[in-house]
Amino acid sequence: MRYKCVVSYDGNRFAGWQKQADDLTIQETIEKAISRIVNHEVVIVASGRTDAKVHALGQVFHFETDKEISNFQKAINSQLPDDVYIRSVEEVTEDFHSRFDAKYKRYNYLINNGEYNPCMANYSCYIKEKLDIDLMKRASEVFIGTLDFTSFNATKLCENENQIRTIYKIEITKKDDLITISYYGNGFLRYMVRMITQTLIEAGLGSVSISEIQKMLDKKDKTACSYNASANGLYLVEVGYKEYQKNME
Amino acid sequence: MRYKCVVSYDGNRFAGWQKQADDLTIQETIEKAISRIVNHEVVIVASGRTDAKVHALGQVFHFETDKEISNFQKAINSQLPDDVYIRSVEEVTEDFHSRFDAKYKRYNYLINNGEYNPCMANYSCYIKEKLDIDLMKRASEVFIGTLDFTSFNATKLCENENQIRTIYKIEITKKDDLITISYYGNGFLRYMVRMITQTLIEAGLGSVSISEIQKMLDKKDKTACSYNASANGLYLVEVGYKEYQKNME
Repeated sequence: MRYKCVVSYDGNRFAGWQKQADDLTIQETIEKAISRIVNHEVVIVASGRTDAKVHALGQVFHFETDKEISNFQKAINSQLPDDVYIRSVEEVTEDFHSRFDAKYKRYNYLINNGEYNPCMANYSCYIKEKLDIDLMKRASEVFIGTLDFTSFNATKLCENENQIRTIYKIEITKKDDLITISYYGNGFLRYMVRMITQTLIEAGLGSVSISEIQKMLDKKDKTACSYNASANGLYLVEVGYKEYQKNME
Repeated sequence: MRYKCVVSYDGNRFAGWQKQADDLTIQETIEKAISRIVNHEVVIVASGRTDAKVHALGQVFHFETDKEISNFQKAINSQLPDDVYIRSVEEVTEDFHSRFDAKYKRYNYLINNGEYNPCMANYSCYIKEKLDIDLMKRASEVFIGTLDFTSFNATKLCENENQIRTIYKIEITKKDDLITISYYGNGFLRYMVRMITQTLIEAGLGSVSISEIQKMLDKKDKTACSYNASANGLYLVEVGYKEYQKNME
């Protein structure tokens, strides 16, 4: 039987999602927890990796087991540390694949643009200088659409690999001193959200113009953008398995 | 010269405010930072202690030095870790005392009453069962006024010591699934806020009635209340040096 799980985690303690030989990862932590419950080794497959320190509210993974466990969600959570939480467990058909079937993803990036707050330090990026939200919104329009994001990712790819992605929407909202940038796209390359975010921050500071950003994108060159916002402000909020709808929240 | 400082900190890494032989404390961390700046040993005096894991947004302390440092705030912060932040440094007269002169304190207690969120685990108390806010508000009225809080504190005191404190106001607000309880009082005994908070939570769950809470208070007995909410939801928000005003936020 195949199960689809939605999981939230605090990324601070982890060297990211993907299993590594020496460092603590979220994948390994969850695999160990599920393995203890079903009494056999389990491999989980996520919708995609998240990097070290990146948080998730709605990461999705799937796995298989023949064991039937009552109240599977509660059972797995009982084996997990406080910073990883299974939000739901759902039986799915064998053809469901958490990565290949994902139609869109939503990431949020949080910026504290007020006074420094130690309690938020690991959960947002701190920018002291006041950001011009209108400038950031206008700059964000450069990234909307089906575009070649070669300039805005750090993936080590063979030249031919596809670096075209679609960003459906970028929402920028401010509440008190907290700025949230929401990205909805059909997929995101490595560091893509963080590189775009830092570019929008630089735009909001007036350090880069919209035409310069457009030129960076048009270059399709990995050296074009040296911006990269810190990991601790980034949250994988949702993985969607139905087509993205324009008015969807 | 005497300086008054306002400091915020994330309590998670610390065994509380007060210096201890073996454990990392906030007092020690700040004293070391200031000592490095002024080049002599410094002792700082806080408005009061906070316990292990308790956070602060507006703790106040004072200290003395003869050294004149330009941009003192920035200099101290440059020597502090990310989870302790000096919000302000102000020269005061020699008769200012952070503890003896404090007229009121405000504590906030945060309760996540929705879905468990790993990113909030160290910054709020998680209560799964829906709390009845109206019941909690009514129960909170028991604690308003100048009262003997012997039943609601864990201080090891000689029998004669004063356990009478004044709570001016308790505000309970709910925003989405986050409940904030704000306490304004002329002073709080050890564990007093956490013990009252857990009592209000139990009231909100229907596990204790208002008349039972009144009886607990009237008993003036340290064994009367066994409730104690977890430290990680508690924030020292403000220390006031002017008389508390009824309509003050």
